[in-house]
Amino acid sequence: MEENKATRKLRVCVATCNRADYSKLAPIMFGIKANPDEFELEVVVLGSHLIDDYGNTFRMIEQDDFDIGSKLHTIVRGEDEAAMVESVGLALVKLPDVLHRLRPDILVVHGDRFDALALATAAALMNIRILHLEGGEVSGTIDDSIRHAISKLAHYHACCTRTAEQHLIAMCEDHTRILLAGCPSYDKLLAAHHRDDYMDIIRNWLGDNVKEHDYIVALQHPVTTDIKNSIKIYELMLDALISFNKKTLILFPNIDAGSKEMVRVMRKKGVEQHPNFRAVKHVPFEQFIQLVCHAGAMIGNSSCGVREAGAFGTPVINLGSRQTGRETGENVLHVRDADTQNKIYHALELQFGKRYPCSKIYGDGNAVPRILKFLQTIDLDEPLQKTFCFPPVKEWDISQDIDHILETQSALAVDLGGTNLRVAIISMRGKIVKKYTQANPKTYETRMELILKMCTEAVIDAVHLNCRILGVCRQEAE
Amino acid sequence: MEENKATRKLRVCVATCNRADYSKLAPIMFGIKANPDEFELEVVVLGSHLIDDYGNTFRMIEQDDFDIGSKLHTIVRGEDEAAMVESVGLALVKLPDVLHRLRPDILVVHGDRFDALALATAAALMNIRILHLEGGEVSGTIDDSIRHAISKLAHYHACCTRTAEQHLIAMCEDHTRILLAGCPSYDKLLAAHHRDDYMDIIRNWLGDNVKEHDYIVALQHPVTTDIKNSIKIYELMLDALISFNKKTLILFPNIDAGSKEMVRVMRKKGVEQHPNFRAVKHVPFEQFIQLVCHAGAMIGNSSCGVREAGAFGTPVINLGSRQTGRETGENVLHVRDADTQNKIYHALELQFGKRYPCSKIYGDGNAVPRILKFLQTIDLDEPLQKTFCFPPVKEWDISQDIDHILETQSALAVDLGGTNLRVAIISMRGKIVKKYTQANPKTYETRMELILKMCTEAVIDAVHLNCRILGVCRQEAE
Amino acid sequence: MEENKATRKLRVCVATCNRADYSKLAPIMFGIKANPDEFELEVVVLGSHLIDDYGNTFRMIEQDDFDIGSKLHTIVRGEDEAAMVESVGLALVKLPDVLHRLRPDILVVHGDRFDALALATAAALMNIRILHLEGGEVSGTIDDSIRHAISKLAHYHACCTRTAEQHLIAMCEDHTRILLAGCPSYDKLLAAHHRDDYMDIIRNWLGDNVKEHDYIVALQHPVTTDIKNSIKIYELMLDALISFNKKTLILFPNIDAGSKEMVRVMRKKGVEQHPNFRAVKHVPFEQFIQLVCHAGAMIGNSSCGVREAGAFGTPVINLGSRQTGRETGENVLHVRDADTQNKIYHALELQFGKRYPCSKIYGDGNAVPRILKFLQTIDLDEPLQKTFCFPPVKEWDISQDIDHILETQSALAVDLGGTNLRVAIISMRGKIVKKYTQANPKTYETRMELILKMCTEAVIDAVHLNCRILGVCRQEAE
Amino acid sequence: MEENKATRKLRVCVATCNRADYSKLAPIMFGIKANPDEFELEVVVLGSHLIDDYGNTFRMIEQDDFDIGSKLHTIVRGEDEAAMVESVGLALVKLPDVLHRLRPDILVVHGDRFDALALATAAALMNIRILHLEGGEVSGTIDDSIRHAISKLAHYHACCTRTAEQHLIAMCEDHTRILLAGCPSYDKLLAAHHRDDYMDIIRNWLGDNVKEHDYIVALQHPVTTDIKNSIKIYELMLDALISFNKKTLILFPNIDAGSKEMVRVMRKKGVEQHPNFRAVKHVPFEQFIQLVCHAGAMIGNSSCGVREAGAFGTPVINLGSRQTGRETGENVLHVRDADTQNKIYHALELQFGKRYPCSKIYGDGNAVPRILKFLQTIDLDEPLQKTFCFPPVKEWDISQDIDHILETQSALAVDLGGTNLRVAIISMRGKIVKKYTQANPKTYETRMELILKMCTEAVIDAVHLNCRILGVCRQEAE
Repeated sequence: MEENKATRKLRVCVATCNRADYSKLAPIMFGIKANPDEFELEVVVLGSHLIDDYGNTFRMIEQDDFDIGSKLHTIVRGEDEAAMVESVGLALVKLPDVLHRLRPDILVVHGDRFDALALATAAALMNIRILHLEGGEVSGTIDDSIRHAISKLAHYHACCTRTAEQHLIAMCEDHTRILLAGCPSYDKLLAAHHRDDYMDIIRNWLGDNVKEHDYIVALQHPVTTDIKNSIKIYELMLDALISFNKKTLILFPNIDAGSKEMVRVMRKKGVEQHPNFRAVKHVPFEQFIQLVCHAGAMIGNSSCGVREAGAFGTPVINLGSRQTGRETGENVLHVRDADTQNKIYHALELQFGKRYPCSKIYGDGNAVPRILKFLQTIDLDEPLQKTFCFPPVKEWDISQDIDHILETQSALAVDLGGTNLRVAIISMRGKIVKKYTQANPKTYETRMELILKMCTEAVIDAVHLNCRILGVCRQEAE
Repeated sequence: MEENKATRKLRVCVATCNRADYSKLAPIMFGIKANPDEFELEVVVLGSHLIDDYGNTFRMIEQDDFDIGSKLHTIVRGEDEAAMVESVGLALVKLPDVLHRLRPDILVVHGDRFDALALATAAALMNIRILHLEGGEVSGTIDDSIRHAISKLAHYHACCTRTAEQHLIAMCEDHTRILLAGCPSYDKLLAAHHRDDYMDIIRNWLGDNVKEHDYIVALQHPVTTDIKNSIKIYELMLDALISFNKKTLILFPNIDAGSKEMVRVMRKKGVEQHPNFRAVKHVPFEQFIQLVCHAGAMIGNSSCGVREAGAFGTPVINLGSRQTGRETGENVLHVRDADTQNKIYHALELQFGKRYPCSKIYGDGNAVPRILKFLQTIDLDEPLQKTFCFPPVKEWDISQDIDHILETQSALAVDLGGTNLRVAIISMRGKIVKKYTQANPKTYETRMELILKMCTEAVIDAVHLNCRILGVCRQEAE
Repeated sequence: MEENKATRKLRVCVATCNRADYSKLAPIMFGIKANPDEFELEVVVLGSHLIDDYGNTFRMIEQDDFDIGSKLHTIVRGEDEAAMVESVGLALVKLPDVLHRLRPDILVVHGDRFDALALATAAALMNIRILHLEGGEVSGTIDDSIRHAISKLAHYHACCTRTAEQHLIAMCEDHTRILLAGCPSYDKLLAAHHRDDYMDIIRNWLGDNVKEHDYIVALQHPVTTDIKNSIKIYELMLDALISFNKKTLILFPNIDAGSKEMVRVMRKKGVEQHPNFRAVKHVPFEQFIQLVCHAGAMIGNSSCGVREAGAFGTPVINLGSRQTGRETGENVLHVRDADTQNKIYHALELQFGKRYPCSKIYGDGNAVPRILKFLQTIDLDEPLQKTFCFPPVKEWDISQDIDHILETQSALAVDLGGTNLRVAIISMRGKIVKKYTQANPKTYETRMELILKMCTEAVIDAVHLNCRILGVCRQEAE
Repeated sequence: MEENKATRKLRVCVATCNRADYSKLAPIMFGIKANPDEFELEVVVLGSHLIDDYGNTFRMIEQDDFDIGSKLHTIVRGEDEAAMVESVGLALVKLPDVLHRLRPDILVVHGDRFDALALATAAALMNIRILHLEGGEVSGTIDDSIRHAISKLAHYHACCTRTAEQHLIAMCEDHTRILLAGCPSYDKLLAAHHRDDYMDIIRNWLGDNVKEHDYIVALQHPVTTDIKNSIKIYELMLDALISFNKKTLILFPNIDAGSKEMVRVMRKKGVEQHPNFRAVKHVPFEQFIQLVCHAGAMIGNSSCGVREAGAFGTPVINLGSRQTGRETGENVLHVRDADTQNKIYHALELQFGKRYPCSKIYGDGNAVPRILKFLQTIDLDEPLQKTFCFPPVKEWDISQDIDHILETQSALAVDLGGTNLRVAIISMRGKIVKKYTQANPKTYETRMELILKMCTEAVIDAVHLNCRILGVCRQEAE
């Protein structure tokens, strides 16, 4: 019995929806497949992988020699958000049959797109464990709501950055179920950094005359909460790139609402025929890495710019709000309101050809081994029911327990030295919300008592001010 | 222009899925309808409202004289979780057309059921503002994941209890968008408390011989993450009730996976024909209030037991895990592992006929006016994009800012007096994770410095121990 | 290669939606399974098989030891026609994934219900061959439209009666793809006719005091195009049965719109508690056969009454329009406008206890072997594209060809002059199928008589040659 | 009451799925809108109308100033037949809500595409009358099955050609519900024939140097039952057109499975950049008419080639099997197995620049008035249930009735003896529809000749009386 349990393999189902999430999931899939004694792998393919306009990228998965257990059409055509919702619906109508058939112990989903929300919803309601990759990040778009909603449905989290980890903890996810793994694509990325044949790849995509650090990679997606503006930015970017007059590899936007309009803009400007440009729907990930690694600059609003490019120190110009709030290395220059061609052109001038130090914010190259080890520790006999780790809530008006300084979100700044004891409630954004000052007692005991009293008072006020005090910090005497 | 804006009405769409959520939404709907100068009301009906087996409760809405803008079949038949997922899918396929047609400024959704997740997903992806009712609560079931996921998608929250509010804040929702309203059903509940004709109602449902405080109301739903056990509990409850030999009004379980099996159990035991029992599918809410208010006890796992019943001080026996973690008044006796008939019978003996003081945890009777006022303050020109209020994250290894004692979840307990300075990392659950002891320096300054040093050390360790330090509390000298 | 092809097995997918179609499909499934050298069997289960209210009849299939390749929830809840349409939609959304996975050479579907239309639509559009059972029949309801629509989508037809066969030919289906098989359930039916233990079965369902030919089997379904009236008839039938005062086994109606209301009527009349009645959701088919075979009468509007009951000569009272137009044996008494209790009661008096001669309209007990043989003849290399056999159309106003008396599909060519009278059956494509020659009588009257006789003979032969004679044309003397 | 009924307007819902069906439906919609005293118009838009890749053609409908009552995304992405099935499913899931809301008396659907099947299925199951346009035609593809299945579901038929009408009758549709209307697009077509500004239009699309009768219009769609071959043909057509070296307007293929691949072939050959070619997604119908009318030739497999082009006598080269079996004028040259570039090139040489006489097979320009009049005659009080007109079937082996020569739908009764030769058309129900009497000639030969003449005459009349003669029987002398 014991033995039997020990040898039981974990059935892991990896669901992939598009080339972007596959670049993160593939390293894990290879890892799982390389350990057949411990894991069984099932692969479910859905979303834009199966769409010709997006390169029929399910073929990549077949070429990588994975058996695809189910291919599901889940995209409803239509150029607006309604079609996105309906696509989630379509996926939810179809997924139960597949999950029923494959009966995975755990489903691995990635990211923050609508397809991932469908996967997480299906699995959560069907009592299937979920490992979510890339939770806790912040981009400043509708994706945030989706990503955090997925986190709430997921049972386990493998996140990429320290900040993401702390966000998950802050949102009351159980820290014993959070793994700070780093980004799986970085494993390959950092490994593949110094490949010899990179010039062949670059020439293959951009022609024989192209030189290292002397071309641009452009990739701009629509922002679904602000489609009109994102098309405008796209147009300005194209104008700026045309003027900037460098060889440019431009990738087609993803499938989100607004993408068709972007393609139309691109065609109107004759980009596909322009001698400086090479417009493509898909570049295999390893080649794409090389292209980004050796580019003079990368431009657009792709997550690749703020994430992967940092690992190589490639200069990036990030346009608009899509990556607002993302952690980035110093290689990224943000052009948030990209409202003139000049602004973008100027940013290109500033960045093009520079080199930055490499950043490891998003990973140190060991994500996959960490994730595999984490998967192995999952105890299937443990109850499936999630526990959310809320801070213990005290009813201040009734509680006798005034010994707490606090568990709260804002901070109490305490100035311990000088003539006065000073306590202040300071908001997350650094603003002083309320101040308290008292003459500093002489003795240590009275001082401590007074501090505690002031803190208690501040904490009570904080509740009425709709703050939560998360800690106490000492304020330097001014 | 200004004027125009001032007079513009807020288009509010209320979506209701079943009799339970309607009991919370109806008071708001009446409130909206009573203010035609400020609001336009649209009503969307879906889910089990339209199902005969659940009483075709959409008729209640028609009887309340609301115009139903759309009735959507969204329930896929099937007695398992898969059908639930598919039902979410079906709703998502259909909702965009309705939302497109009705174009609400804001969608009001309630609770934590799969239908509500569908509504929130649709609205969030379609950039329609969402007001979510009853967020932040904790029941200890799969419902928690759904409820919190909905909170992540919702733009505004009207919650019922102080604890719920603090949970929402803790999960990093923007506190300026959280309203502590109380439960809307309490408005009516408290108003209807002292109705004269209550004995007529009771007799109407339970026969002429029934007496006040001398009958039982039973309502037990399946727990979808533990169907088998919840059917077992149901069976034991029926046995206990049959032995207990009091007039009992028993309501059919809701539509969740497992309900069919429960009905079968009920039929097998002949409950429908039993002279002590009255088995019904639906009781109008006002009558149900009276029945609960004057019952000798309420038994089961309905949220009504832990919520509404408290307002009347009616004794409640809460069976199993479905309401685990719910805030309750002292009137609730939990029988968590209801694994024998005796245990349940004993609980009935303990509770039956008692009276408890009324509790206002779930509302003070003014929820609807608060919610209407809150709706009026919504600025449609404000960006739709949600802001999540994460605590500012510091990179401890690079940060120069060592003055912070911390923003963390676990607590550092600091013993300031005595021979030794003692610092400990204490987990949320009160366990000491790690201890630090140093001889207590003599002077105030050195003490403070040492404390800070110890705390800093502890904080660094905490990260490696996978804790987060949320505050510092003084530990009493032992 | 040749050899390989010879040994290739035909992959047959049988899709079953409810207990009714399973009673026809099961004999074929057993037949296929018994020939593993020639067939591979896949079973897809959908529709009301998976619904608790309808007896979770998928378990019958499991008990019959078939592997179920896919179980699909396809029923959308709702008590109206809209839900039926949505159920078709749900099935169509899900079926392609299943058909893609199972890749059958041929899909076997049965009957005229909405689920069968979904199956036929999916397979036809996906270029999968379809064998349709029970095409060509006429019931006089909306089912006719669906059944004939399925015939148009199906590539092969196995029909039950001679009339059905001729209807299919008349609707221009290719007669080479029509098999007059008889009803598969008759194979079992006729075999099981004289079972010894029938009284045990009858007593098991109707109590120990019941006698042969002294009880009633009642089964009335809603008519979706006239729900209100069919509920009325149901009510009158119940009243008549209560008055008639005989032991009665009453089955719950099927899942169609209106069924819930019927169940309500039944409950209101206390049928479930009535000592004369036994109300059940499902009776295993073999037992049901025995119950019908030995009943004093069968009443309702079930197809079983007009079909299976005839095989035993059991008297049937058929109520309302649901079976209008169905071929029946003389054992059936139609009460088309069943608008008073008296009328139904009177019909019961007329029929109860009678015995009729057995009828073989619907089958001779050899349907399954015929169907299996037919399946084996299917040439998968033949183009999938259906050919519809329209009569050749002539533009009368321009045609020079006035020798034709009639336009023909097959024609009888009649040579009136010369020494011999000659008649021939000529196919649409001009080929002579069969010739008849007789010496030409002298007188006009004898000639005419002989011609008529020859034509009659040719027409009879034509049926056996699978031709249909659409006209007679004069053949020029050669 | 009477009066009220007289003035009640017929609520007609027209559902349009793509630019092709809109070109047939629009004339009817204009007609309905022009008669507001008799009709109310509702418009439902679905299918590829709402897809950017197909020109977002719903805008045409808005520009034509029709109110669109509902826009439904119904296309599931995917490049195969499965996606088509799922699209039907999606439409069926959504349509009931719309039909419920609009409550039309009659739904008008057109043609033979999967979207139309969805519409017909929804309406038939929801007991909504259906008028189907273009039933009874034959193309020799999977479309035939769909078209005939729709005919079985439809309650009324407005067909285009005499042959189509006879096919519908042959398939046992009720001839009183069949209207031979002609194609509605012909009304406009024939009216617009001699427009003065046609050269402006031609130059606008094909450049200033183009001359009348000196350019080609190319339009080739995929054949879903033979995708691979149809892509091959497409490639060969492009090669032939490139060699043929004439100005060519080429339209993108429709949305069917295979179209993406075709577009890829087109791009690979550089057609979009080729100076002779103009590749476009959509041409407004009136302009398209002019372009076809004055073309040197039209090539491809569009129904427009075999239908509309005939009205102008424009030479057409029809490639492959997609229109196999369609009725065509003499202007069409079929290249069924278009397996070499040479064959196609040769066909272009044969046809280019020729002129043919105009054909009215598909319409005389009065379809719309006929259809409106037909709609007005629909009696909503008549039962919805369809009657299928099967020929009465006789069991030959038992029938004593050997006087029949043939079984009949209508029969010609022939009285051979007596003073007069008498022929009569007798309906299925035994009513004499029309009588013919002639003095009986003396000799056998003259008698036979006269009989044949009378029968021929009767058969011609029968067509005008909307009967079909299925046989001849001898009438006994009275």
